[in-house]
Amino acid sequence: MSAPGSFAVDVGGTDIKSALVDGNGDLHDVRRTPTPVIPGDGEATGRAIVDTVAGLVPAGVAAAGLIVPGWVDDARGVAVQSENLGWRNFDFRTRLEAELGIPVGFGHDVRAAGLAEYRLGAAREYSSVAVVPIGTGIAAALILDGQPYSGDGLAGEIGHLRVADGPACACGSRGCLEAVASAGAIARIYRRRTGDDVDGAREVIARMHAGDRTAAEIWRAALDALATAFTALTTLIAPEAIVIGGGLGAAGNDLFDPLADRIAASLTFQRPPVLVPAGFGQDAGLIGAGLLARDRANPGVES
Amino acid sequence: MSAPGSFAVDVGGTDIKSALVDGNGDLHDVRRTPTPVIPGDGEATGRAIVDTVAGLVPAGVAAAGLIVPGWVDDARGVAVQSENLGWRNFDFRTRLEAELGIPVGFGHDVRAAGLAEYRLGAAREYSSVAVVPIGTGIAAALILDGQPYSGDGLAGEIGHLRVADGPACACGSRGCLEAVASAGAIARIYRRRTGDDVDGAREVIARMHAGDRTAAEIWRAALDALATAFTALTTLIAPEAIVIGGGLGAAGNDLFDPLADRIAASLTFQRPPVLVPAGFGQDAGLIGAGLLARDRANPGVES
Repeated sequence: MSAPGSFAVDVGGTDIKSALVDGNGDLHDVRRTPTPVIPGDGEATGRAIVDTVAGLVPAGVAAAGLIVPGWVDDARGVAVQSENLGWRNFDFRTRLEAELGIPVGFGHDVRAAGLAEYRLGAAREYSSVAVVPIGTGIAAALILDGQPYSGDGLAGEIGHLRVADGPACACGSRGCLEAVASAGAIARIYRRRTGDDVDGAREVIARMHAGDRTAAEIWRAALDALATAFTALTTLIAPEAIVIGGGLGAAGNDLFDPLADRIAASLTFQRPPVLVPAGFGQDAGLIGAGLLARDRANPGVES
Repeated sequence: MSAPGSFAVDVGGTDIKSALVDGNGDLHDVRRTPTPVIPGDGEATGRAIVDTVAGLVPAGVAAAGLIVPGWVDDARGVAVQSENLGWRNFDFRTRLEAELGIPVGFGHDVRAAGLAEYRLGAAREYSSVAVVPIGTGIAAALILDGQPYSGDGLAGEIGHLRVADGPACACGSRGCLEAVASAGAIARIYRRRTGDDVDGAREVIARMHAGDRTAAEIWRAALDALATAFTALTTLIAPEAIVIGGGLGAAGNDLFDPLADRIAASLTFQRPPVLVPAGFGQDAGLIGAGLLARDRANPGVES
């Protein structure tokens, strides 16, 4: 754990988050830089991100780790596709290594956060576990028998399990988990039904506690949808635990107890997964990017 | 491929199937022996099966492979639980090795069949694949990134994904895939709705082709249910292919084309899995048991 520092970068649709990662895996100087998006040109967007990141990396770091959203082929180091950022088969790792002259680890934002939880955080005790951030969207990082499983970058799309008849989902289907139970959907549905603006899902939960029945209904529907999806995940994959992160991972007993009850009620012979709040907050991805940097710099040695 | 022969045993609820397996993996002298079930005493049933199997194994074989249904911990060689056969934590491998004095491979019937398809059969080309026999029940053997994944013996229970509001399932839930779309369920639902006896699901399909509208409705509902379950599997695990075996695996284009169409229609961004008929029929389990025998006799060398 006394490796030289590395640099971690988490590319999002609006911001690039970056930080120095010390030999203990701790983050320093976390900062945000606007993501340079060139509308309609994913290739130019990718190149602009590489340039921006190259300008952020301080001299003297031994390695960098970069994570991006969308469909990512971690093994090849390629960003296969992103609807929001527009690229197709953009080879971030090769380009950034050429630019920086240091090893660059590359991966998917959700799977990197899952790796951080598995190696250092709330999933450490388990060998088969799903790490599920619930925020704007919902996706799962799967670690099965101690190995991250990505399904060529396509697995873990739990946010697009169909759990209800509606509403419409951005993916083109209807009733996807993400359209009912993501933090974004909960706030959106509340706004649509009441005409009231709310700051986010946490405010919907707060209004439920203040006696707002619409808020309570929307939250119950979200819990039902999450239970349906986690029951399906359990039936197919039988994880020992499900680690819940993102904005809703911090919802405490408003989330965990009623969700565990619903899952237990819908399982028959299956083993109920332990539900665990994520150990890292919004920085899980950056911590995971730091791990990818060190893995790339020291192949075969897991930090 | 010139290893000495081994002996393969597939324990079912009514019959024990066994065969000699030659150095090429081919089966010889397949035979059936009634399963000795001692009602209400799973421990005695387990012991009686060990005795029966010991009596079947010919002198001179180098190894044996035994597979059983239910909840099986392949790694420990223990049959954790079987509702039908009654045992709890019965250590088949240790007992049979003591009885026979040769290495005994031990595993789960569906996963052994999946291993046979993966190493020798229809799943050979793929590194992430679900092998799904559709017969009396429905379950999946998962091979992910080239490794069999069992989830402590609990994964792959696709037959108990909830895909409809009913009918009741033997597991205690309702609307499980197995209760709608297994070969057994299709025949059972037809008998209940028409009062006519049918020989099995294949006869329901034959009646549909003869213009029987009830048969057509039941088959359509089964296809819808299978498509719902395979869509969920694809969304979570993204297998490259789904290999369909069991009685319905031989249903040809009555099954494969309409099922692929339904899956394609319900996916949005996900990669449609290739649907493939199993390469081995009812003997897939025995062939897999032969592989387990050889793996146990030659650890580290995959046949």
